[in-house]
Amino acid sequence: MVILGIDPAIRTTGYGVIRITDGRMEVLDCGVIRNPVKAPHSECLRRLSGGIRELVKQFQPEAASIEEPFLGRNASTAIILGMARGAIVAALAENAVPCYAYSPKSAKKSAVGNGSAEKEQVAMMMAAQFHIEVGAIPLDATDALALAVCHGQLAMRGAQVRDLLTSPI
Amino acid sequence: MVILGIDPAIRTTGYGVIRITDGRMEVLDCGVIRNPVKAPHSECLRRLSGGIRELVKQFQPEAASIEEPFLGRNASTAIILGMARGAIVAALAENAVPCYAYSPKSAKKSAVGNGSAEKEQVAMMMAAQFHIEVGAIPLDATDALALAVCHGQLAMRGAQVRDLLTSPI
Repeated sequence: MVILGIDPAIRTTGYGVIRITDGRMEVLDCGVIRNPVKAPHSECLRRLSGGIRELVKQFQPEAASIEEPFLGRNASTAIILGMARGAIVAALAENAVPCYAYSPKSAKKSAVGNGSAEKEQVAMMMAAQFHIEVGAIPLDATDALALAVCHGQLAMRGAQVRDLLTSPI
Repeated sequence: MVILGIDPAIRTTGYGVIRITDGRMEVLDCGVIRNPVKAPHSECLRRLSGGIRELVKQFQPEAASIEEPFLGRNASTAIILGMARGAIVAALAENAVPCYAYSPKSAKKSAVGNGSAEKEQVAMMMAAQFHIEVGAIPLDATDALALAVCHGQLAMRGAQVRDLLTSPI
């Protein structure tokens, strides 16, 4: 089972791709879709949606795991985050990749046992878990990788996971 | 010049297509992309993005005019509206249709001379302006049509219109 974790934002969207074989997880890829600071939103959305399509084509994930937005933000920030999220989820849905949502806290708790861990700690612990160099995990891809691992662990446990479909978001 | 006006929302997205020839505007189409109340967000976004692509293919608009979101909303509503908007703007950007944003008030003021007009009044006044039956304008398409007219009037006047690109949204 291949899972694509995504931590969306208009300028810097992290992604992590893991594969689970016989209960063992391995990282296939992780990185960042970065948009220039001055690029118009329309161009950023085009690049996000195109980038996600490329990842889906390359890795054929069976599921995507996306960060549930923190609702404390103000409305104007929320609109922009929502736009990034919308372009990404539309690209996934067009390719029939089901999309699950988890809070950053659940993702980190599930991935490294500590929901309040800093990105650096999470990266280090995941590097150890997957036997990869910590330098190979861009900091902005850490949360995305944790999201993929979180969904992977729930899927392995056969837990009923919450689909974006039925989620209030 | 063909302009596609869009009033985005996750469940009911209004659209209106106008053509300007020698300073005269005519309505080519107007209607609603409606999503079932219980459809998952991912499915709604797939349908919105697919619907916009179909309109672009059919009418080849030179510009899109989209409603600027009202920022008084709370963050969770804003995220969902942002998602609808993101899927739509990504579909426009993939097809190289530049996207301009106007507040509902500016759109109505520009289209019928009154920024506080009710949907019904706007529909009636636009029906008169375009010599069409008022019943042919679905109420949910009224704002979209006003957005198209608003951009059309600014474009005719050669006014510098604000692109989503340079907009803070």
